[in-house]
Amino acid sequence: MFNQLIPKLLSHKNIAVFSHVRPDGDCLGAQTALSLWLQKNGVEVSAFNEDDVPENLSWLTDFFPIQKPTNLENFDAFVVVDGNALHRFGDEAEKIADLDKPVYMIDHHPDPEDVFEEFVSREESSSTCELIYQLYEEYDIEQVDAAAAKAMFTGIVTDTGSFQFDSVSSETMRAGSELLRRGGFTPNEIAERLYASRPLRQLKLLSMALETITLHAGGDFSTISITQKMLEDTGCTKEDTEGFVQYPLSVEGVKACVLLREDGDRIKLSLRSQSPVDVNKWARQFNGGGHKKAAGAWHPGPLNKAIEEVIAVGKEQLDSEA
Amino acid sequence: MFNQLIPKLLSHKNIAVFSHVRPDGDCLGAQTALSLWLQKNGVEVSAFNEDDVPENLSWLTDFFPIQKPTNLENFDAFVVVDGNALHRFGDEAEKIADLDKPVYMIDHHPDPEDVFEEFVSREESSSTCELIYQLYEEYDIEQVDAAAAKAMFTGIVTDTGSFQFDSVSSETMRAGSELLRRGGFTPNEIAERLYASRPLRQLKLLSMALETITLHAGGDFSTISITQKMLEDTGCTKEDTEGFVQYPLSVEGVKACVLLREDGDRIKLSLRSQSPVDVNKWARQFNGGGHKKAAGAWHPGPLNKAIEEVIAVGKEQLDSEA
Repeated sequence: MFNQLIPKLLSHKNIAVFSHVRPDGDCLGAQTALSLWLQKNGVEVSAFNEDDVPENLSWLTDFFPIQKPTNLENFDAFVVVDGNALHRFGDEAEKIADLDKPVYMIDHHPDPEDVFEEFVSREESSSTCELIYQLYEEYDIEQVDAAAAKAMFTGIVTDTGSFQFDSVSSETMRAGSELLRRGGFTPNEIAERLYASRPLRQLKLLSMALETITLHAGGDFSTISITQKMLEDTGCTKEDTEGFVQYPLSVEGVKACVLLREDGDRIKLSLRSQSPVDVNKWARQFNGGGHKKAAGAWHPGPLNKAIEEVIAVGKEQLDSEA
Repeated sequence: MFNQLIPKLLSHKNIAVFSHVRPDGDCLGAQTALSLWLQKNGVEVSAFNEDDVPENLSWLTDFFPIQKPTNLENFDAFVVVDGNALHRFGDEAEKIADLDKPVYMIDHHPDPEDVFEEFVSREESSSTCELIYQLYEEYDIEQVDAAAAKAMFTGIVTDTGSFQFDSVSSETMRAGSELLRRGGFTPNEIAERLYASRPLRQLKLLSMALETITLHAGGDFSTISITQKMLEDTGCTKEDTEGFVQYPLSVEGVKACVLLREDGDRIKLSLRSQSPVDVNKWARQFNGGGHKKAAGAWHPGPLNKAIEEVIAVGKEQLDSEA
C-alpha cells in the first residue's frame, strides 16, 4: 500500500507534517507516529498544527513537539494526515500548494482533492493511525517504539469509539494487539488520559444536555441541544461537548441524530447515523458534509427553527429512500 | 491451561452449565460459548440461570437457550462460569454441592472457593470469555463459529468497557481480532445490541443522576446518587443504572468513586477505583467485597448518612496508605 509513498518520503531532507485544524486523537496520533518514523529514518521533521492541541491530548506532544506553522518555504516537502483537502489544515497549509514542493497525503476520508504528489487514501480504514501502523509494518515493524505505539493506539481508539464502530476490522484489532505488545502498555493508560480526566463542569453540562433529548419522526431521529446559556452556566466551552452526540444516537430505535449547539449567531449541526441513513447527504442540504455516518453543517438559527428544518430535511430524505 | 479440565469435561454424558445470578455479558457469553463447545464435542448440555437474562443480552439465547435450573439430579456434572463460589449462582446451584457429582469452574475472580473437582481460575484474565476463547484455542480453534465468536466477543467487551480497562492485554485484543475474523462480524453489531438501544427514560435518569455528582476528600473521591424518586419519576428500574458509576470515576483527579442507590430501606453501594485505592478492602468495611477496582456493599441508610460514612471510611483507608 505504501510502496510508492515510502521511497518518496525518505528521499527528502526535511519535511513538515500537518494535522488538521481542530485536531483530534487520530490526526495528532498519526502526525506523531509519522514524524517519529521519518526522524528515525533520517529525515528532519517539523510537526505543525494551526490550532492548539486539546488538553486531553497534550501528553502526545511529549513524544514529538507540535508547533504553529512557520518558515514553510524552507521545507523540501509536506505531508498532510487525516484529511484530504488542504483547507482542512488551515490558512498556512492552504498556501503550500503555491510553493512548488511535493505535498503528500495519508488519510481515510472520501473524495480526496486532486493536489497531491502521491497519497494513500483508504476510506475503509478505521483511522489514519491504522494506516500509519501499516506503513510501519510494511517498512520495518521493529521501529514501533513505546511512543509511536501509544500515539497510534490513541488515534485508533478515538476514531473508533474504543473499537466499537463498524469501521473496526479484524486487522484493526490485530494492530491494537501488536501496539499494546510492542508499546508495553495497557489501554487504560490511554483511556484515562483521554476520558478519565473530565472536568466536573462537563458532566454538569451533559446533565443539562441530556434533558433536551427529543425524539422526532416517530422515533427515527433524535436531537440534543446545547445552548449558549448552558455553556455559560457551567463554565464550559464547545470543546466540552465532545462525545455528547453519542447519547441521542444510543436511544433505542433511533436511526440518526442531530446535535445542535448555539455558536455565536449560528447553530452548529453534528449529524450521526447508525443505519443506512446517509448523514453526509443530509448535511449537504445545509452546505455541510462529512462521512455517511458522521457529518456536520451550520444553520443560521434560531435553535427551534434549526431543529424543525433539519428534521424536515432528514424526514424527506428518509421517505425518498423508503 | 485447560489440559486437565478438557478431558474431564468431555468424559461426561450430560452437563449443566451455570452462569451467575444478576447475569451480565461476560457470564452469559461464556456460558453460551462453553455450551456450544460441549455440544459440538458430543456432550448433552443445559444452560441454567436462576434470574432472567437482561433485555440487551436476550439475543444471546438465540445461540443457546438459557433456562431456569431444573432436574439437577439428572446431570452427570456441573460447570459454573464467571464466579468462584457456589452461592454466586443462586439457591439451586448451592444445592449441587450435595449431589455428589463433579463441579467444575472457569473464572477470573480472586479467592476461589475450595469445592471444585477441577477449575481454571485466572485473575489476570480480562474476562471469563477470554478464558473460554483460550479453551477453544487449546482444543480446536476451528470450532469457533459465528455464534460462539459473537458470544465471547460480547463478554470481553462488557467486562473491559470495550477494551479500555487495565485487564486488557495484547492477548485479549488478539482474541478480539480472531473472533471478528472467524465470526465474520464488526464490533458495532455487538455494541449496538449492548448499548445503542437504551430506552429514553434511562438518559433522563442519567441526566438527574449526573446532577448529584459531588467531590469529596479534596477531590480524591466522588459520589453519584440515585434516589427512589428519580427511578419513579423516570419510570426506571435499578437495571437502568448500569454503567452510571463510570461517570463520577471519570472526573479529573478522582481516585475512586461510589455510586449510591436507594433500594427499599437500604442503600446499594457500588465502588470503583482507578488508582491504588483498593475498593475491595473498602467495601469489606461494609460487609461487601469484590475486586480491587470494583466492589459492592450495602448500607442501612439513609442516603446522606451513607455518603458521609462511606467517604469517612474511604478517607481513613487512603490516609493509612499514604
